[in-house]
Amino acid sequence: MKLPKRTVQRLSRYRRLLFKYRYLSEPYIYSHDLARLLNLNPVQVRRDLMLIGSSGNHRKGYNVNELNDLIANTIDSSEVQNVGIVGIGRLGQAILNYVSDQEMNLKVAAVFDIDNKKVGKEYGDIMCYDISRMSEIVLEKNISIGIIAIPSEFATSIADILLRSGMEGILNFTNVHLDLPKHIYLKEFDIITTLEEMAYFVKNK
Amino acid sequence: MKLPKRTVQRLSRYRRLLFKYRYLSEPYIYSHDLARLLNLNPVQVRRDLMLIGSSGNHRKGYNVNELNDLIANTIDSSEVQNVGIVGIGRLGQAILNYVSDQEMNLKVAAVFDIDNKKVGKEYGDIMCYDISRMSEIVLEKNISIGIIAIPSEFATSIADILLRSGMEGILNFTNVHLDLPKHIYLKEFDIITTLEEMAYFVKNK
Repeated sequence: MKLPKRTVQRLSRYRRLLFKYRYLSEPYIYSHDLARLLNLNPVQVRRDLMLIGSSGNHRKGYNVNELNDLIANTIDSSEVQNVGIVGIGRLGQAILNYVSDQEMNLKVAAVFDIDNKKVGKEYGDIMCYDISRMSEIVLEKNISIGIIAIPSEFATSIADILLRSGMEGILNFTNVHLDLPKHIYLKEFDIITTLEEMAYFVKNK
Repeated sequence: MKLPKRTVQRLSRYRRLLFKYRYLSEPYIYSHDLARLLNLNPVQVRRDLMLIGSSGNHRKGYNVNELNDLIANTIDSSEVQNVGIVGIGRLGQAILNYVSDQEMNLKVAAVFDIDNKKVGKEYGDIMCYDISRMSEIVLEKNISIGIIAIPSEFATSIADILLRSGMEGILNFTNVHLDLPKHIYLKEFDIITTLEEMAYFVKNK
């Protein structure tokens, strides 16, 4: 069964919230509390959890540890999925640190750059490779997702290398929209353009 | 004249690209080159620039410095707009560094946290204030945009403080959707949920 995108997003959010209760002995949570903490509709929460096979206990609510396992079984790969970060400047390093801090089934397995001062260096245990070796390393380390944090001016010239590297998902942080084939799962977010857009509309209200 | 959101986004992207040419003596660029570098349609580029009053030169293309000024006059506030970062953990510090690195008309004027070890400390010249003082500092420093980088579990309890602080735009990096009134310009992006969603769909292709 392939779940809708929004459901997967919410399951990821439930799990992130529930994670901090995992060392309690017998934690239970009501759907309305889960909904309130995440600013969601309780009916939707119950529907999502029903969908993955959890109906909860009328008196005590949902068993947190069981729910965590169920969500993991539903949305996680049985093995860790490997991520590569392309461009290890300030933004790339920030993303590396942030992602490495999270407990999840995704692991940064390699970083890539064109800068000779960076290639061959380790960033918190993660080796930096020359971008020209991307296809080889992606194959060797079984990397399926790439995070693009290079300066925007290089974005289009790198799209080709990315495509040939065999990555199946791309999270693009540059301000250049990447025109990739449909079989690549693409998500884009550009912080600076977003801030300038916000500034414009806040000023011109 | 209030421009469409997409136009503002593209103008911001043109400017970011053109910025690096600003020290050349007489730089000109063709619309088709601008389009190619940003992966856009040349017709759209010409239409956008026409909209802000620039039609370019048939032989040489667009004067880069004039174009930069025109875009600035169109989308920038005449004064610098101040931004506050709420939550100065790993993600908040990364965003602070990244935004401070960019040459733009937005400036981080204050950061906020609840952690006593952080409050009163400076982060690259920017003072960290207790979240309880947000309304006061937002008014004092004329902050219009808030970037939310607190742990997601605190997101809903902080929404109220945010609202009362008088910020007019919110960029939310937590995994909790903030239910704010329509007059607040809200943008949301959650890196971890996005990565988990990508991992799910890459795995289940």
